[in-house]
Amino acid sequence: MKLIKKINILIVGLGLLGGSYAKGLKKLGFYVSAITRSQKTIDYALENGLIDSGTTEVTAEAVGNADLIIFALYPHVFTDWIEKYQAFFKSGAVITDVTGVKGCVVHKVQDMLRDDVEFIAAHPMAGKEVYGVENSDDAIFKGANYIVVPTERNTPEAIELCRNLGEILGFKQVAELSVDEHDQMIAFLSQLTHCIAVSLMCANNTPGLEKYTGDSFRDLTRIARINDEMWSELFLSNKDVLLKEMDRFRTSFNELYDKIKNDDREGMREMMRLSTERRKLFDKT
Amino acid sequence: MKLIKKINILIVGLGLLGGSYAKGLKKLGFYVSAITRSQKTIDYALENGLIDSGTTEVTAEAVGNADLIIFALYPHVFTDWIEKYQAFFKSGAVITDVTGVKGCVVHKVQDMLRDDVEFIAAHPMAGKEVYGVENSDDAIFKGANYIVVPTERNTPEAIELCRNLGEILGFKQVAELSVDEHDQMIAFLSQLTHCIAVSLMCANNTPGLEKYTGDSFRDLTRIARINDEMWSELFLSNKDVLLKEMDRFRTSFNELYDKIKNDDREGMREMMRLSTERRKLFDKT
Repeated sequence: MKLIKKINILIVGLGLLGGSYAKGLKKLGFYVSAITRSQKTIDYALENGLIDSGTTEVTAEAVGNADLIIFALYPHVFTDWIEKYQAFFKSGAVITDVTGVKGCVVHKVQDMLRDDVEFIAAHPMAGKEVYGVENSDDAIFKGANYIVVPTERNTPEAIELCRNLGEILGFKQVAELSVDEHDQMIAFLSQLTHCIAVSLMCANNTPGLEKYTGDSFRDLTRIARINDEMWSELFLSNKDVLLKEMDRFRTSFNELYDKIKNDDREGMREMMRLSTERRKLFDKT
Repeated sequence: MKLIKKINILIVGLGLLGGSYAKGLKKLGFYVSAITRSQKTIDYALENGLIDSGTTEVTAEAVGNADLIIFALYPHVFTDWIEKYQAFFKSGAVITDVTGVKGCVVHKVQDMLRDDVEFIAAHPMAGKEVYGVENSDDAIFKGANYIVVPTERNTPEAIELCRNLGEILGFKQVAELSVDEHDQMIAFLSQLTHCIAVSLMCANNTPGLEKYTGDSFRDLTRIARINDEMWSELFLSNKDVLLKEMDRFRTSFNELYDKIKNDDREGMREMMRLSTERRKLFDKT
């Protein structure tokens, strides 16, 4: 299967990400349908031109027509869904996802999935600190990274299809990682940063701090507005790897602490020069 | 003295902040002169209309004409400057600063300063991760906070003048803090965030991470591009307070670590809800 306009795309779960996929794909001319929990979400998506059709019922009709299905659900909801409804899939369909942790879903889904349907995992590194279909915006993909996470069970065709999906949605860079590489990378780059932001906000209960703050604190804690249901699940789904990355950060933070304590100005400056050098690579351009 | 157009303003130190003050004040119609180390900086500031006149020489003429003097220097350079050149001040002049730590400069300067000149300290909570007069931009003050740091030695008139300076430059909010309050606040809101960003960048030497990153990591580490000379001085100038704030963060981070380790989902979610609630107050609007 190739990513051409005549294929039908189904999005399961119309939250911020599902809605943003829908918006981008419909703009590109695809027929986009959706299945999601609430009728209000469907109504909003129809009224705002994010989808062509939608339903809250998981039926053979709603699922069986789709060539490409994008799952934008919490990890455990995703795996439960496959278990319950995979009989509805059209033969030859390709399914993909946006799940933030891969170890807990990819093998499980590939193990139980019908032989005539292929699951190729992906992780769009884009988001917002707000949720819901109302905040959908395919502009969040511009300049962002998109990671395809194939296993030995995936065909070159499905991998290519999944890469193309990232490219046409406007991601700047499409990369490939194994499941383990992905989960380690994500533990450091995404989960750890959320742990830091949440911890920092919880560290100080002095009222009125917002009157004195600068942008450094604002930017660092932007992600401290966090979906507690989703992120607690993501953290626990990747627990061992995340704890190791948290340890790695603690070691580095403690090193800086000791240098300050010991008036080791040159040691501090060395860390600052290293961080400056490394950070340059991360600018969006 | 009131902040009216006919007063002469001198800026000492034309870096990013000094240059941004110059730009904003000249736009407002003040006569702005500058003293800074390099002739190239003066040339740039003259060519780009940031100042009316400038010199690299600290002379009676260059200093003695100014009614209001704004010091935008590193802490130890600022106090050395006052010691060496205060004889040049015009009687009745008011001086202010932009120094990021107050305990190490305010009392020292007020103690040694001539009786006919008043120092009122201020801290503009604005900046960029780039430096130098070429990056000057008075737009950085828009929406930002400005903190006036008076002591019992300051007159109501000078405090008012300093507040007005923040207001006319376009700061959104002008607040007042004592020296100790300021240094504690800044240790948490600014210095600690820089410590976190630097430590995070130093924690992982895996190459190619930038290919997989999302915005959360980018935003959190924006300030990891850091002026090592200035920040090592600021950290050590506020060492005891900063170490306490670092401890406070470590406690909170360790708490989250333990909750993840113990599969304490409800405990994690509670921290996330608290952080979400608190973070809402910090949005710029």
